[in-house]
Amino acid sequence: MGDDLLARARDLDEADALAGFRDRFVFADDLIYFDGNSLGRLPVATRDRLRVAVEREWGADLIRGWDTWIELSRDTGDLLATGVLNVDPGEVVLADSTSVNLYKLASAALDARPRRRVIVTDDDNFPTDQYILQGLAEARGLELRRVRTDVDAGISIDRVAAALDRDVALVSLSHLAYRSGARADLVTITRLAHDVGALTLWDLSHSAGSVPTPLRAARADLAVGCTYKYLNGGPGAPAFLFVRADLQPVLRQPIWGWFGQRAQFAMAADYDPADGVERFCVGTPPVLGAYAAREGVRITAEAGIAAIAAKGAALTGYAIELADAWLAPHGFTLATPRAATRRGAHVTLYHPAAWQVSQALKAAGVVPDFRTPDRLRMGLAPLYTRFAEVHEGFARLREIMLNRTYETFPVERSRVT
Amino acid sequence: MGDDLLARARDLDEADALAGFRDRFVFADDLIYFDGNSLGRLPVATRDRLRVAVEREWGADLIRGWDTWIELSRDTGDLLATGVLNVDPGEVVLADSTSVNLYKLASAALDARPRRRVIVTDDDNFPTDQYILQGLAEARGLELRRVRTDVDAGISIDRVAAALDRDVALVSLSHLAYRSGARADLVTITRLAHDVGALTLWDLSHSAGSVPTPLRAARADLAVGCTYKYLNGGPGAPAFLFVRADLQPVLRQPIWGWFGQRAQFAMAADYDPADGVERFCVGTPPVLGAYAAREGVRITAEAGIAAIAAKGAALTGYAIELADAWLAPHGFTLATPRAATRRGAHVTLYHPAAWQVSQALKAAGVVPDFRTPDRLRMGLAPLYTRFAEVHEGFARLREIMLNRTYETFPVERSRVT
Repeated sequence: MGDDLLARARDLDEADALAGFRDRFVFADDLIYFDGNSLGRLPVATRDRLRVAVEREWGADLIRGWDTWIELSRDTGDLLATGVLNVDPGEVVLADSTSVNLYKLASAALDARPRRRVIVTDDDNFPTDQYILQGLAEARGLELRRVRTDVDAGISIDRVAAALDRDVALVSLSHLAYRSGARADLVTITRLAHDVGALTLWDLSHSAGSVPTPLRAARADLAVGCTYKYLNGGPGAPAFLFVRADLQPVLRQPIWGWFGQRAQFAMAADYDPADGVERFCVGTPPVLGAYAAREGVRITAEAGIAAIAAKGAALTGYAIELADAWLAPHGFTLATPRAATRRGAHVTLYHPAAWQVSQALKAAGVVPDFRTPDRLRMGLAPLYTRFAEVHEGFARLREIMLNRTYETFPVERSRVT
Repeated sequence: MGDDLLARARDLDEADALAGFRDRFVFADDLIYFDGNSLGRLPVATRDRLRVAVEREWGADLIRGWDTWIELSRDTGDLLATGVLNVDPGEVVLADSTSVNLYKLASAALDARPRRRVIVTDDDNFPTDQYILQGLAEARGLELRRVRTDVDAGISIDRVAAALDRDVALVSLSHLAYRSGARADLVTITRLAHDVGALTLWDLSHSAGSVPTPLRAARADLAVGCTYKYLNGGPGAPAFLFVRADLQPVLRQPIWGWFGQRAQFAMAADYDPADGVERFCVGTPPVLGAYAAREGVRITAEAGIAAIAAKGAALTGYAIELADAWLAPHGFTLATPRAATRRGAHVTLYHPAAWQVSQALKAAGVVPDFRTPDRLRMGLAPLYTRFAEVHEGFARLREIMLNRTYETFPVERSRVT
């Protein structure tokens, strides 16, 4: 059976329509990297573009660089809109961090539903999403209603439906759960929220660049996400935000900065927000990070989300087969939905000794992602992950379990990103 | 007289204690760059550090890079605190943009003075400062009291005093005015604000790295600033914020993100802010920009603010002499205070055709900074500007006026950064 699985990995790699994209990324060594869901690899084009940005533009053009830098946030937003998120140009812009964008858009949404007293999220949402919403709820005296989610199964439509009533101003959820990789039914949940007159705010951090984001089909209202995971924008690259075009004129965000101002360089004394999506911007954008984000987005758009999602489904499906065959006997449980349409491009495995196992795997040249308290995430970034690598990485994991080498690693957890 | 002035420039360069620092920056050509007050030059160390950060850390270390990246915001904050701002380690952290930091700290200050109804600023404050405060005032139903400032003279102590009463929650001003370069009396204004029980929030964007910031002597409460001007942190580098140590436990900022959370990677469901200055952080920090900011801050700290400020005073003093001798006859007026202790490291000249003149100067290989509607700012960054360059740049400006070449440039203003 081991041989069958290896042969199939080779066949899948052979048939992989995206195989050529691997060469677009930097590979410094033969590390097996299953953490593209947390920090994507460095594209070759980004390495080169950053040299130009630093050494020629900053180094020689100096302030004159702003003649082009000023367009980066919007250009990258448009590329994200049309090439990745399948929404219209002018609906997306690069800005701030995911957390700050969540704050701005959630606050704008609550202002637009002033008489409603409830924000709905789920209790497995990413911590920063929960904290941002808690802060807004506390400041405004609102109820934060957290739908219970069975971690491995993802968000239950029925439980969300039961939490909705005409007192709900905003439903804010992650499209793809950070621990399990479970994909929420964005279209149905958005419809249910709209049925009670609530606005929706989706966090696409784990889905942008890995699966289709049906914002248009759903007529979703608002979304945010990061660019450093599947979009390969680099550490701390700027986040993005989406505001549906017809909502832009009626929403106001609370942080009135000069990059949201109409005719910004007129330096008028009074705030007058720009008409378009720029009104959701605030301060001077991080140019180096924006360049890196743009290159990453470009490669994703070039490959196309349909092809990326298809390969992600195949990679994770293959990983699940390996886990069933090799790891279940060692006490691993799949903590990701089995149906390909219900997950993204990462597979999560539950094991009581996950922390020790993750250390042993790193020592064996495989980088997984540990998520407290007892989960291993295997992020299989479709643009550069080979099926043969999945085979090899899981084989090393099986060895670690067979030889119990993980038991020699510390039980105590250090800080883990 | 022209020869005297040139001889003196040479003498001043000869005696310049900071002359050696010029070699620490990239000079791609013989451009005369008088816009270091808007975007500082690229340090050689930054160019090299960014290559390592991108190509080795992101490219090869990948997610493991976060073991060191996670410390960047606080490390750079400590370096800023002790080496540049003269406050204690733990009182400063790198985070977000200046605008977002203003919002967070102003909001925290207003929460700490819940019964007071007034925010005081001045009508010549940088636009984003005014907008942020307007937004907060509108959201909370407060009065934004804007003290009238005579642009060229800077903030009047008497007018600030007259605006203060026990209904004032917050006084938020710029230490160094962005147009005139006038330096506010931070110590006296802070004392006046404290006398009525108000908190102070200073924007140090133009003073950090150019003049001493007497936050400690003033017992100033809060401050923010950017790192891309005199600190040479590069385009859109992350901003910083300062919160006096004893205020940190009692202030809460409104954007509850996971980088402000105690034991962030425990991924707890409920927000519990960190004890120290990290509670004023929000989302994932921009790593590339933070590295660039750190290198810039390092060079500034190494040179020392006393030496930098002394050279800045000499450079601007010399520029004022040149302006008096060469430019006043052509209709230029000094729009910066003459007393060295009342200005920073930029000199502003008023001229009705300032826009045309700025274009002509650029064509002549000198980059000034235009500020709408009729001002030329000459930013003379002390770490890398030579007196002989000031002589040469002003000589070219004189030629432009003598030959009236500026009249051949468009009157219409384009967007200018």
